[in-house]
Amino acid sequence: MNTFFKKRINSGHKSLHQSPGKVIYVGKKENETRLEVISYSENNYSHVESDDLQKAYGLKETQEKTWINLDGLNQVSEIEKLGHEFELHPLVMEDIVNTEQRPKIEEYEKYISVTLKMLYYDKNGDFVREHLSVILGKNYVLTFQEANEDVFGRLRERISSGKGKIREAGADYLMYSILDAVIDNYFTVVESISEKIQALEEELFKKDVSENLAGEIQHFKREILKIRKAVLPLREIVKQLQHSGHPFLHSKTKHYLTDLYDHIIQVGESVELYREMAWGLMDLYMTGISNKMNEVMKVLTIMASIFIPLTFIVGVYGMNFHYMPELDEPYGYFVIWGIMIGIFIAMIIYFKKKKWF
Amino acid sequence: MNTFFKKRINSGHKSLHQSPGKVIYVGKKENETRLEVISYSENNYSHVESDDLQKAYGLKETQEKTWINLDGLNQVSEIEKLGHEFELHPLVMEDIVNTEQRPKIEEYEKYISVTLKMLYYDKNGDFVREHLSVILGKNYVLTFQEANEDVFGRLRERISSGKGKIREAGADYLMYSILDAVIDNYFTVVESISEKIQALEEELFKKDVSENLAGEIQHFKREILKIRKAVLPLREIVKQLQHSGHPFLHSKTKHYLTDLYDHIIQVGESVELYREMAWGLMDLYMTGISNKMNEVMKVLTIMASIFIPLTFIVGVYGMNFHYMPELDEPYGYFVIWGIMIGIFIAMIIYFKKKKWF
Amino acid sequence: MNTFFKKRINSGHKSLHQSPGKVIYVGKKENETRLEVISYSENNYSHVESDDLQKAYGLKETQEKTWINLDGLNQVSEIEKLGHEFELHPLVMEDIVNTEQRPKIEEYEKYISVTLKMLYYDKNGDFVREHLSVILGKNYVLTFQEANEDVFGRLRERISSGKGKIREAGADYLMYSILDAVIDNYFTVVESISEKIQALEEELFKKDVSENLAGEIQHFKREILKIRKAVLPLREIVKQLQHSGHPFLHSKTKHYLTDLYDHIIQVGESVELYREMAWGLMDLYMTGISNKMNEVMKVLTIMASIFIPLTFIVGVYGMNFHYMPELDEPYGYFVIWGIMIGIFIAMIIYFKKKKWF
Amino acid sequence: MNTFFKKRINSGHKSLHQSPGKVIYVGKKENETRLEVISYSENNYSHVESDDLQKAYGLKETQEKTWINLDGLNQVSEIEKLGHEFELHPLVMEDIVNTEQRPKIEEYEKYISVTLKMLYYDKNGDFVREHLSVILGKNYVLTFQEANEDVFGRLRERISSGKGKIREAGADYLMYSILDAVIDNYFTVVESISEKIQALEEELFKKDVSENLAGEIQHFKREILKIRKAVLPLREIVKQLQHSGHPFLHSKTKHYLTDLYDHIIQVGESVELYREMAWGLMDLYMTGISNKMNEVMKVLTIMASIFIPLTFIVGVYGMNFHYMPELDEPYGYFVIWGIMIGIFIAMIIYFKKKKWF
Amino acid sequence: MNTFFKKRINSGHKSLHQSPGKVIYVGKKENETRLEVISYSENNYSHVESDDLQKAYGLKETQEKTWINLDGLNQVSEIEKLGHEFELHPLVMEDIVNTEQRPKIEEYEKYISVTLKMLYYDKNGDFVREHLSVILGKNYVLTFQEANEDVFGRLRERISSGKGKIREAGADYLMYSILDAVIDNYFTVVESISEKIQALEEELFKKDVSENLAGEIQHFKREILKIRKAVLPLREIVKQLQHSGHPFLHSKTKHYLTDLYDHIIQVGESVELYREMAWGLMDLYMTGISNKMNEVMKVLTIMASIFIPLTFIVGVYGMNFHYMPELDEPYGYFVIWGIMIGIFIAMIIYFKKKKWF
Repeated sequence: MNTFFKKRINSGHKSLHQSPGKVIYVGKKENETRLEVISYSENNYSHVESDDLQKAYGLKETQEKTWINLDGLNQVSEIEKLGHEFELHPLVMEDIVNTEQRPKIEEYEKYISVTLKMLYYDKNGDFVREHLSVILGKNYVLTFQEANEDVFGRLRERISSGKGKIREAGADYLMYSILDAVIDNYFTVVESISEKIQALEEELFKKDVSENLAGEIQHFKREILKIRKAVLPLREIVKQLQHSGHPFLHSKTKHYLTDLYDHIIQVGESVELYREMAWGLMDLYMTGISNKMNEVMKVLTIMASIFIPLTFIVGVYGMNFHYMPELDEPYGYFVIWGIMIGIFIAMIIYFKKKKWF
Repeated sequence: MNTFFKKRINSGHKSLHQSPGKVIYVGKKENETRLEVISYSENNYSHVESDDLQKAYGLKETQEKTWINLDGLNQVSEIEKLGHEFELHPLVMEDIVNTEQRPKIEEYEKYISVTLKMLYYDKNGDFVREHLSVILGKNYVLTFQEANEDVFGRLRERISSGKGKIREAGADYLMYSILDAVIDNYFTVVESISEKIQALEEELFKKDVSENLAGEIQHFKREILKIRKAVLPLREIVKQLQHSGHPFLHSKTKHYLTDLYDHIIQVGESVELYREMAWGLMDLYMTGISNKMNEVMKVLTIMASIFIPLTFIVGVYGMNFHYMPELDEPYGYFVIWGIMIGIFIAMIIYFKKKKWF
Repeated sequence: MNTFFKKRINSGHKSLHQSPGKVIYVGKKENETRLEVISYSENNYSHVESDDLQKAYGLKETQEKTWINLDGLNQVSEIEKLGHEFELHPLVMEDIVNTEQRPKIEEYEKYISVTLKMLYYDKNGDFVREHLSVILGKNYVLTFQEANEDVFGRLRERISSGKGKIREAGADYLMYSILDAVIDNYFTVVESISEKIQALEEELFKKDVSENLAGEIQHFKREILKIRKAVLPLREIVKQLQHSGHPFLHSKTKHYLTDLYDHIIQVGESVELYREMAWGLMDLYMTGISNKMNEVMKVLTIMASIFIPLTFIVGVYGMNFHYMPELDEPYGYFVIWGIMIGIFIAMIIYFKKKKWF
Repeated sequence: MNTFFKKRINSGHKSLHQSPGKVIYVGKKENETRLEVISYSENNYSHVESDDLQKAYGLKETQEKTWINLDGLNQVSEIEKLGHEFELHPLVMEDIVNTEQRPKIEEYEKYISVTLKMLYYDKNGDFVREHLSVILGKNYVLTFQEANEDVFGRLRERISSGKGKIREAGADYLMYSILDAVIDNYFTVVESISEKIQALEEELFKKDVSENLAGEIQHFKREILKIRKAVLPLREIVKQLQHSGHPFLHSKTKHYLTDLYDHIIQVGESVELYREMAWGLMDLYMTGISNKMNEVMKVLTIMASIFIPLTFIVGVYGMNFHYMPELDEPYGYFVIWGIMIGIFIAMIIYFKKKKWF
Repeated sequence: MNTFFKKRINSGHKSLHQSPGKVIYVGKKENETRLEVISYSENNYSHVESDDLQKAYGLKETQEKTWINLDGLNQVSEIEKLGHEFELHPLVMEDIVNTEQRPKIEEYEKYISVTLKMLYYDKNGDFVREHLSVILGKNYVLTFQEANEDVFGRLRERISSGKGKIREAGADYLMYSILDAVIDNYFTVVESISEKIQALEEELFKKDVSENLAGEIQHFKREILKIRKAVLPLREIVKQLQHSGHPFLHSKTKHYLTDLYDHIIQVGESVELYREMAWGLMDLYMTGISNKMNEVMKVLTIMASIFIPLTFIVGVYGMNFHYMPELDEPYGYFVIWGIMIGIFIAMIIYFKKKKWF
């Protein structure tokens, strides 16, 4: 099969109109390709980092459990060679570098391929949605990441320190641990959504609602929909892993996959819950605007209701009729002032009673 | 398997980034660990309370039906030892102490594990969502509660007094009774939701709608969503129990489980009903605000419509034209007053007819 | 099994915290217990009414088709004895007297138990939701009703007059006829909903929307949700009857059950339709309020737009400048009046054109 | 079975409280009963019309393909006799004359009965929902229509002219052709909905939204819900026909039924689409009202903002202070006019800039 | 079978009331019929274009893989002859020319027929929904397009240049490639929706919301609903292809179909996401209008609140009472000015504090 690699960097669904099975990188260019090989058994452990992908060649038949991790997907031709080395199907190769690919699982005879998204906050606190492909072979796990950061710090630590059962268990347990680390991080992201909703709500209950909050809410709704799009397909994937009869998945790992399934369901439910809360925010905003308008109207009504009648009264005594008896009364002016002050106070009391201020 | 216990108390989903199967307590610290062992057969009954969890060791092989109840989950290392004693899987242990765990069921060869939430109002009338794990073994039921209070008062009474069929029936009937007590209490909680909705509605129909009611409604919607999250997964759990072929579940208990399923469906339907009612509250609030604004506008319009024309009239006779015949009329002033009073009365009648006040 | 009966009358889900299978009446107390026994075969017919439930003892083995109907559920201990006589399971007994029980079906070896709700308008025209339990035995049907009124008038008539196939057919056809009578009455209730919606809509299109209509709509939505809660579970019940292989249900009756299923589907669809219509009422109400506010605003705007400029003009000629040529013009005053009347008419035409009145 | 026929004409679900299987006509009375018999084979064709239903007797065993069409359902006793002749089940007879019956299908050994609704615009352009029952026997198709008009003009033409494959194919193809004609007409109705929505939208975008549009929209929503109620159950009916193993349905006709299923799905999708559009109309109306109110408010605000300050200015120079230097200025009056015109122009520019007019 | 062809060009669902299986073109007339035949094997390649459909006759038994593409569907009689040549079922012929047909799949013994919609932007940038039928025979693929433009440019290029595996693979891979090209183009369309939403949102956050935006949003919602109607049925179609056991679909192609299924799911999810976003736009618009009204009200309230009290004050000193001590004060006039300026500034500060401007 003569597929070839081409670096094509532009925006959107960039692999359109290409031959199917053609491997095209569509992500951001700046990530350096970096190879990391962790080999371990119950008693041994080695960790190698390199820029040279050829270091991974031949590891397909490894006897020790081996985690081959690749950061950065822009060296497409190198990655394709690596894929050839591990006998990956061209469609799998396409999914690995197509960072727009939605989460999916494919079972082949010689490996299982899982595509998913890492969600995390990077060093700068920015929200990142990183494309991740996990290939489970006989004794190895191959991971392809879009960017250099990841959520596997503690997992690496556990392997190097030999904590937990990871060193004893097989490559399938390693894959499980990788998925577990990814899903665990979803909880962090979901929590931050919860906090953001609470912050937005507090903002909305303030007296002076900012006018561009509607934009923020709409933006936020979009965020949640995107997280949802990353989370929901994982249910099916973990479920298929759970019930798969693939020989690389040992029965002992099944309990852990059940647990994983449970977690992803829980994340999904939280996303739905926060989604429903977020949808309510726009209603809250509307009531906020309406309350504000009510307040504006009250100020107007109070001012107008008090001073328009008074202006009428003073207008009366500004008339130039020749015969207006009040004008000649020596205390007329003061009496009128008294009447007007009385009206003023009555009005204030009336509006106070109505609880308008 | 060398899992270890660590007390880590912070907020949120706190067991993140830990080795799977690691037992970490994530709840509140203040609850004292307390052991309660109730052993009974048709004719015997004993009740022991203690702070020492070791009192429960060896009860795995008990011949009498035994309910081992543990309050407080913060003594994690003690609980882990107990779990070892009862040969519980590390993932089960993790679920027991992870108070954020959603309701689930796991069937193992030697026991069935059910995780769920107790919802109740505590001594102070505060709403509590307490984590509860129920382990059904051959002759024993092991329960792990997050807090000291629970909803099992009448169940204990029934065991001690020998009322009902509980003393004759097996440990599976005890588990059923525990679940039944939990679900029965959901009805109380759901009823209080109903009352809260009614109270909110009454508040909303008052003339002067408080402005922070929107916040209360939003808060209330969140409450309902959380109760829903606790209730909905129970359907699947009870259904699985009902159709399970596990040898510890006797066929006689099946009828009771069907009844239980029926109850949980009923609770779920009520929650959905009240949820729909609660979602309508925001609309009610909006209409409340709009009605209020209407009232404000009417006051303004009435005041302005009456006095602006009158002010115009008096303005006319305040003009300084040299020749204005009316000004010289002896009764001009009184005629004008008459006209203005006429306009005033006409306006009042007009607005009365429009039912504006 | 030593269940016992206790009369406990209070509000809400009153059987909480009781031993499962304990028979507790939770309905209203005032209904007298009354027994009615109708025995019939193709040629014979007898009808007995009594206050003494013991008259029904022994009818379990009746050879003639027998309808034993019991009104009023508060004589719980009597009812329990009757239940014992007919070998009913304690959980069935609990469902019979628990008037909060949602519709359900249970198949036992010796009988089929169906719990449902009668919806009808009683003698006073009040809407009634009455709890009804139907037990189909070999040759008998046992019905337990909460109140004295019911919807079976025509059914009794048909049995006594021997009209239709009821006298020839078996007890299963009698049960079918009872369910059919109940479901037929749902149509009447659903129709009254339809009329109520139409009445509310007409009310909403009136110029002056009453402010407490929002409350009525909310109340109405709640009503529909409750009817829905009574109707929806019946689908599953009739479906199960239809596909049940229970020996008491003869294959000839199946066609009738199919017809019944069809009816209950039809009722359900109507309820959903009216529910959707009812949900639209609040929107209608909102537009009503907004239209009204628009009208208020228009009155204000017209009054202000006409008279504020005129007031300005008369104000101009009320100024005391020493040199204002217009004041000295002999016809100045009348010219000004002319201008003002012109402005007034222009304004009226302008607003007429805008169709503001 | 001694069912009897009774003409009972009143509104609503009129067959309530009747013995099941009792044949009661509930439609409008005015339609004359008219019999139409079309017999045809590949080479022969005969068409007979009559008022005498007995003309149809004996056609049950016809060898030629025969379409027996009956218009008008109020001669219930005649229809029942006809039903007896064709050995129809009483429940089928009930469905034929109960014009409130929802669409359904029943398979009997000797015939298949389909109940559905014709939707069309009659000679006067009024929307008609007509009840139609189709009975497929061995060589005959029996149709019962509520009214005299129908949608089968072209079908009759095709049979008489021998166009298409209808003359060659069997009675099942005739039934398919009848259903096809009915469903084809649904497209016409759905199209008219689409046009009505477009008309309503255009109405809503006009400057002066009529106030009773809300009523029209609500009415329209109700229409769509009713069409939906007629269309949706047909899916299941055609699906069942498609997968039925009834001997009267030849395998060759299956492809045509698949096509029919496809059409009914398409109609259903369109109805859902237009329903969603219709639901959006109320929102549109709300924005229309709000835009209108905005316009009203702008007029008020512009008038008030321009003339209230000017009125203040002229008020200043209407004061009677003894010492007001400006009053003595020879050009004071004109200066003030200049200032006021300046303010006026500035205001106009300000509001122009704000794009308020 | 004597179906005949008729050119009938009118609007809407134009094939109504026709004999089923009658082939009627309902699309636009202007598209010229053009035939294109691409034959290829691993080493050979030929490309022929012609106006004469008879060039395609006899290609049914071709040994080389052959793509017969037909643009323009208005030469219905020619197309029917071609269909006869390829032994297509009349119902398939009907679907080919009925451009209103919804996407569907039919498997026949000798071919598989897929009907779907191409969505693309044509040379002029207009959105086009073009009807496309794909017939997979043993060695050929027959495509019928409504218009001359299509989305197959790159596919033709790949065949002619021999890039990718297309020249080696069978006709089923060609069909897959055609479907893939169509679905790939959906991504472009979906992307443009996304951009349109973003553009609309930006428009909505501008200060002065145009009043006819509501119309645009409604129009846009309708667009999305139509795209959805084209996309959603494809899921089922690709799924059926995937699981079909038809001998023309080789097992090697299955992986590609799985990939295709994945893509169509992804398109569907995006459409749903953008649909939800679009539905939120109307809410955004409402808040925009309300914010605008708030602003209008604020201007009015500020102007009125400042100048109405001041007008009252100057009115006081315009009264003509004989004894008003202030009028005689030498600096009275200036004092009053001072007071009024003070009130003015106080008001400004008050509204500034309220953040009203």
